Amino acid sequence: MATLLHIDASARTTRSLSRRLSRLFIDEWLGHRPDDRVVRRDLGLSPPPHLSEAWIAAAFTPFAKRTSAMQHILALSDALVAEVKAAAIIVMGVPMYNYGLPSSLKAWIDHVARVGETFTFDLARGDFPIEQVLSGKRLVILSARGEFGFQAGGVRETWNHLDPHLAVCAHYFGVARRDIHLIDIEYQEFGDERFARSLSNAEHRARALARELAAAH
Amino acid sequence: MATLLHIDASARTTRSLSRRLSRLFIDEWLGHRPDDRVVRRDLGLSPPPHLSEAWIAAAFTPFAKRTSAMQHILALSDALVAEVKAAAIIVMGVPMYNYGLPSSLKAWIDHVARVGETFTFDLARGDFPIEQVLSGKRLVILSARGEFGFQAGGVRETWNHLDPHLAVCAHYFGVARRDIHLIDIEYQEFGDERFARSLSNAEHRARALARELAAAH
Repeated sequence: MATLLHIDASARTTRSLSRRLSRLFIDEWLGHRPDDRVVRRDLGLSPPPHLSEAWIAAAFTPFAKRTSAMQHILALSDALVAEVKAAAIIVMGVPMYNYGLPSSLKAWIDHVARVGETFTFDLARGDFPIEQVLSGKRLVILSARGEFGFQAGGVRETWNHLDPHLAVCAHYFGVARRDIHLIDIEYQEFGDERFARSLSNAEHRARALARELAAAH
Repeated sequence: MATLLHIDASARTTRSLSRRLSRLFIDEWLGHRPDDRVVRRDLGLSPPPHLSEAWIAAAFTPFAKRTSAMQHILALSDALVAEVKAAAIIVMGVPMYNYGLPSSLKAWIDHVARVGETFTFDLARGDFPIEQVLSGKRLVILSARGEFGFQAGGVRETWNHLDPHLAVCAHYFGVARRDIHLIDIEYQEFGDERFARSLSNAEHRARALARELAAAH
């Protein structure tokens, strides 16, 4: 039995394309592997708070020295880290907001990047002192963008601070670059033929990816 | 008399290097132009909430059709937009968190990007339907990073989703690319000679930039 972590970051519930795509992926997966476990983390409906000074102080205090107030302030972060640790596959429905991550998903990353839990830091390693703790997981990014051309070679390639940013942070989640899958819907704001085609392609690809990964797992 | 918008995004207050740099800039500016007005927006201490479905619905409802509940939900966003509109110079103290913006600053961007207020959208413009509303402002980014090499040509250039992301969003603030100034402290996590030099250089440059811009204003 595998565990999937199903994250949605859209603030919208009723008309969200990224939620539709992540739902499709999970449904297709469970159709092939009905006994797998899906853990749900809805960042749109229940976003984590922004980091605070007290959070940072608690996270950088060694476990044995934390007060009960510090333990309390890290409780949500502990839960989010545990969900990542338990997952074999992280499935993220994530809309592009102003050329980057929704702030709720950035806050989630900030809660998951925990010294001693998801990364270690050692100056003996020289100029690259950070090492990942987790490994062997996959990340499926199912995204929706109002405009288009955000992929490599596209007209808005350099405006894209969504999936390239997730890729830089993926070591916190135990995901190697080659194990990141991206499917995105584009042209949403144009509402034209290109949008219809992009939506239909993305749905097809999300189902196909779920089948392929479920078969290989 | 000019108005400066002084933003800090660090969750830390006591040991924040980005706050130290933005404080230095403002103090130097006021030394030269004591009658200018400084508006303070502390996103570290009072972060804006993440966008919600109700916020999105309200923002995309035309002004004349908004209910009082919608007006209420946009009140903070209205205030943040008004602060940007009133400012000639936006001074941002912003630490790098996990290779990008603190989630509080991303939430601020999401509240400031408002159709009809800071951008307009018109499909008659073709494939680039978004146009900025504001213009003629400057953005001073005063940043602190634990690691190093995030600038063009640096070893971590492609890991940087902080100032390149702000640059893509700068049209919402009425700032042209050539009017963005960046000064950053690097090597914070190394705490070595390179950090001491980077800190001292950044402080020197922040004071010099404040003098130069104050004289030219």
